[in-house]
Amino acid sequence: MTDELLTPEGLEAALRAIGAERYHIHHPFHRLLHDGRLTRPQVQAWALNRYYYQASIPAKDATLMARLPTAEERREWRRRIEDHDGDGSKPGGIERWLKLAEGVGLDRDLVIGTGAILPETRFAVDAYVHFVRDRSLLEAVASSLTELFSPTIIAERVSGMLSHYDWITPDTLAYFTPRLTQAPQDSDWALAYVKRHADTVEKQQAVLAALRFKCDVLWCQLDGLYYAYVAPGLIPPGAFVPEASA
Amino acid sequence: MTDELLTPEGLEAALRAIGAERYHIHHPFHRLLHDGRLTRPQVQAWALNRYYYQASIPAKDATLMARLPTAEERREWRRRIEDHDGDGSKPGGIERWLKLAEGVGLDRDLVIGTGAILPETRFAVDAYVHFVRDRSLLEAVASSLTELFSPTIIAERVSGMLSHYDWITPDTLAYFTPRLTQAPQDSDWALAYVKRHADTVEKQQAVLAALRFKCDVLWCQLDGLYYAYVAPGLIPPGAFVPEASA
Repeated sequence: MTDELLTPEGLEAALRAIGAERYHIHHPFHRLLHDGRLTRPQVQAWALNRYYYQASIPAKDATLMARLPTAEERREWRRRIEDHDGDGSKPGGIERWLKLAEGVGLDRDLVIGTGAILPETRFAVDAYVHFVRDRSLLEAVASSLTELFSPTIIAERVSGMLSHYDWITPDTLAYFTPRLTQAPQDSDWALAYVKRHADTVEKQQAVLAALRFKCDVLWCQLDGLYYAYVAPGLIPPGAFVPEASA
Repeated sequence: MTDELLTPEGLEAALRAIGAERYHIHHPFHRLLHDGRLTRPQVQAWALNRYYYQASIPAKDATLMARLPTAEERREWRRRIEDHDGDGSKPGGIERWLKLAEGVGLDRDLVIGTGAILPETRFAVDAYVHFVRDRSLLEAVASSLTELFSPTIIAERVSGMLSHYDWITPDTLAYFTPRLTQAPQDSDWALAYVKRHADTVEKQQAVLAALRFKCDVLWCQLDGLYYAYVAPGLIPPGAFVPEASA
């Protein structure tokens, strides 16, 4: 990383290079998931833990929205919260994730309670919420930019899971369908914002560090799942223990 | 866990039962460490990451001390900060940990920079600092009670490491010697405080949850080390990569 001022296009290229290296699409747990090499209990552990991330995103977005100065910018960000929380008639992302969790055999109340998630999940997700609350608005917006890379991982996940697990239906994975259009809409706006506002070397470095941080947040969640439910398979005290099943 | 009010002695027993189940003395990474089954680079990774915990403890203690109402209580807590930060003449715990890190072959500036630690370490340690800042004073004090169990793990660590690694000297492990007297002094006070102040079922449950949380903070750090440096041995992007060595 040099300390020269990048052009907006150079900044975008540097952001995309971070994704190419650090996005959790490269994590072995993701590869096991989309290659069909996880058992149903392992997929349950993933769905259970990932719910805590889904359920925390609107809190993250609300604390960011509170600091956006114009109605136009706040409307843009408010759409993210509506996407996750729903409008009271059609279900939002959190409700759709609950359907996914139920679809893989989890009890709805166990998932909503979040008492059985891994410490790694709780600490990583809370770190994200705190980061967005405590850092500059520019860094907060930049930390959302993992959505630049999410259509690829979603496509891999959905096609891989449908073809490899006969107990997973398109209906169960309905969470992901709207995300394929929502995420690019969100990340287009955030990327343009970052390219416009990161106009000093210091700000550009902060933006790049924010995206690295966010990649760590996603990566760390899969580390925890791998450690607890794949190898060595040591489930921390208090965390979800799958029922014995075939 | 019942929801009956415990006697102070019953509360202490419940706290000790949490340690018996969840303290990181039971973690496989600790067992590998004290059994001499880690390589020097793996011990380096442990020392490097654990430094971030050591270096964050005075921040945690300062935010707690700021909320203690009496000079007597603040003096008690201030001693913890002096133990870690030193008095400018004799080295405190942070400086002694740096000696340990240098003793196992790490570069001092790499350790102080904390840029090469695992995301698990950063998120878990930051979660502890935030917990102490954001929760009730009683929960903050209770979260320190893992020190009840630390003399045992220190004794295991020191004797195990000295007998199994010929590249570790008593001098390198000098960090731990004062902790064997400091930790019991600290935990005696904190335990008495908690037994005196947790006088409702709700407060007792909060105290027990705070200790469980703190056990998670310690456990999660060893999860990260195990995952990255033992098995599967996948080091997250940006984290410490040991030099090839025998």
